[in-house]
Amino acid sequence: MKKDHPFGTQAHMHTADMEEKKFNETSRKHYMKGGDGPDSYSRNSEFQKQVLTSAEDLIHQQIDEHLNIQNSRFDPQNTFRIADFGCSIGPNTFYAVENIISAVKNKYEKSNQNQTPDFQVFFNDLIENDFNTLFRNLPSNRTYLVAAAPGSFYDRLFPKKSINFAHCSMALHWVSRIPKEVTERGNNGKIHYLGGEKEVKEPYAAQYEEDFGRFLTARGDELVDGGLMALLAFGFAEGDVYSLSGAGMVFEMLGSCLEDMAKLGKFTKEKVDSFNLPFYFPSESELKALIEATGLFCIEKIAKMASPMSHKPDLKGFTSSLKAVLGVLIEDHFGNGVVEELFGRLLEKVLESPILSDEKYWKDTNYFVFLKRNGVN
Amino acid sequence: MKKDHPFGTQAHMHTADMEEKKFNETSRKHYMKGGDGPDSYSRNSEFQKQVLTSAEDLIHQQIDEHLNIQNSRFDPQNTFRIADFGCSIGPNTFYAVENIISAVKNKYEKSNQNQTPDFQVFFNDLIENDFNTLFRNLPSNRTYLVAAAPGSFYDRLFPKKSINFAHCSMALHWVSRIPKEVTERGNNGKIHYLGGEKEVKEPYAAQYEEDFGRFLTARGDELVDGGLMALLAFGFAEGDVYSLSGAGMVFEMLGSCLEDMAKLGKFTKEKVDSFNLPFYFPSESELKALIEATGLFCIEKIAKMASPMSHKPDLKGFTSSLKAVLGVLIEDHFGNGVVEELFGRLLEKVLESPILSDEKYWKDTNYFVFLKRNGVN
Repeated sequence: MKKDHPFGTQAHMHTADMEEKKFNETSRKHYMKGGDGPDSYSRNSEFQKQVLTSAEDLIHQQIDEHLNIQNSRFDPQNTFRIADFGCSIGPNTFYAVENIISAVKNKYEKSNQNQTPDFQVFFNDLIENDFNTLFRNLPSNRTYLVAAAPGSFYDRLFPKKSINFAHCSMALHWVSRIPKEVTERGNNGKIHYLGGEKEVKEPYAAQYEEDFGRFLTARGDELVDGGLMALLAFGFAEGDVYSLSGAGMVFEMLGSCLEDMAKLGKFTKEKVDSFNLPFYFPSESELKALIEATGLFCIEKIAKMASPMSHKPDLKGFTSSLKAVLGVLIEDHFGNGVVEELFGRLLEKVLESPILSDEKYWKDTNYFVFLKRNGVN
Repeated sequence: MKKDHPFGTQAHMHTADMEEKKFNETSRKHYMKGGDGPDSYSRNSEFQKQVLTSAEDLIHQQIDEHLNIQNSRFDPQNTFRIADFGCSIGPNTFYAVENIISAVKNKYEKSNQNQTPDFQVFFNDLIENDFNTLFRNLPSNRTYLVAAAPGSFYDRLFPKKSINFAHCSMALHWVSRIPKEVTERGNNGKIHYLGGEKEVKEPYAAQYEEDFGRFLTARGDELVDGGLMALLAFGFAEGDVYSLSGAGMVFEMLGSCLEDMAKLGKFTKEKVDSFNLPFYFPSESELKALIEATGLFCIEKIAKMASPMSHKPDLKGFTSSLKAVLGVLIEDHFGNGVVEELFGRLLEKVLESPILSDEKYWKDTNYFVFLKRNGVN
């Protein structure tokens, strides 16, 4: 799942202990609004598209530099397998994989190979994702074989050493669960750790560490030696100030809308107190440390990406896209029939708020990370 | 797609010329009723399940006899890939692939290999198939990796030499299109070729030849050398008499219900005249000749299967299952709102008809075909 505004898509509940050869997972309702109606993710994912666009050239450069086509795993006689983790329902995922294919073909053609490989693309997202819509949206002129692999990307999804290129955009900030410590001690009326107490932030960070570690281990198994991985991730840079971050401010406003609705008796205050957004935004040094800890990958590049919000954001579009991302999750917690009112109220607050029209709040940090699987280089 | 009663599921429109490296197809509405409601295929596929049950032992025997685990393609270090073509939405497909996995494991264990391979299962059906329901129905205790490959099985769906075992049950009788000759000359008020004129049967047979040839060529590309394929197919034996066949009689009754409804002005007579069922039932010698013509496979076994209808059929269940199979196709041709009435009328006719309570009409022929891909043996 690509995400909608700063808060894309995929997150998962993983099984406590993954038994050997048992590929099963339970998952929370952490998926995008399906179908292609006006509220759907497929019509409300312009922000995520902009992130991909800003990564387009980086992907080309990195593939050109780090894809070693002399490696026998990349013999053009073999099928080149690409997996997009957290693909959602399109169209962004098609844009992303076609960009990768174009860069890979380019590399083969430049090297005077008289052959490019066949491509097989695996689309991954949670079992609850709307794969029917994904399939119906498939570009009719595609030049690659298609398959889907449903399930949490915190678990193993593919055979060992079977994937040549892994991609994951705007999905890794979804932690698999709200840490028990946060649920138990409460969060002082906040719905996220940003701007909150250390005792809330730390368990979020620990959960992220566990989840991202599982992601890296699974991809480490699945990638061929010398295989490549591009991650586009929401982050929060060390120097960033919470009160000047768009994400932080929107979470505050969303939380205060929930409080207003509780006061009006739409649901209890306890419901609001027990609601926490399952997002974590790592810093560059956290990302680096976690990747290095696995010993599985060489970090070819890690850098801040240009913000996709360089112009004044369309606040109505922004609120709709946030609704497409969070709607299912919120209904799951608060019950049916609250989503429309909640996001109507949020839109009002967003429109009234001067800070959100000011560019300086729209510089949330996104990271571009490019990794190579150790082994043959 | 597994089929419902004698008339399972998958059929396809293929692109006239499949361009190299272009994997695209359009398809007619030849798919089962989705979801898991009372009319769904998942709740109305008992007949197809019985076919699988009767094949269970045959599959075990054939795998035991013909799976050559000395072949390097079957080294247990490699993932063993199984594809079910025309899988529909479950649960039958899970039953089928788990039976195959159990037989394959058995073979490895018997041979004192201290290792069995990992399994990856690909579920194939048309893009319009309800994959969301398929995924939600996945057995939670499965021991195999899962992927889906949407698209017509008359086209290439997988990389070359990537599949170890192909399976297709009750799906190959769906021809990809009604032959132009039949559409142009009409079919004398009939909705199928069975019991009709030679000028109608021959184009159906030619279409089947083309479609089945495309299926075999595509699977020939995809299977590893020495790879295995089990086909469970509706057929019509050389000596079978149309007027004593369940399929033939049910098609007659369905046609006469459509005529009755046209007389009542529910739709035009032309609509009925232009409707033909996209099914072809080959004989054993046709199957053999078409397989041999490709030169790609060794026929390890071809045999009539025990009829799944050895006891008095549940006619209500039978009519419901036929509705789950044909409903989408019929709505596509006759428009919305006719399916309930049509199958209500059919049930009345079926219940009134003495022939359908008589076992001798319920001996339609199903073939079990077991093939091995030429190459390493």
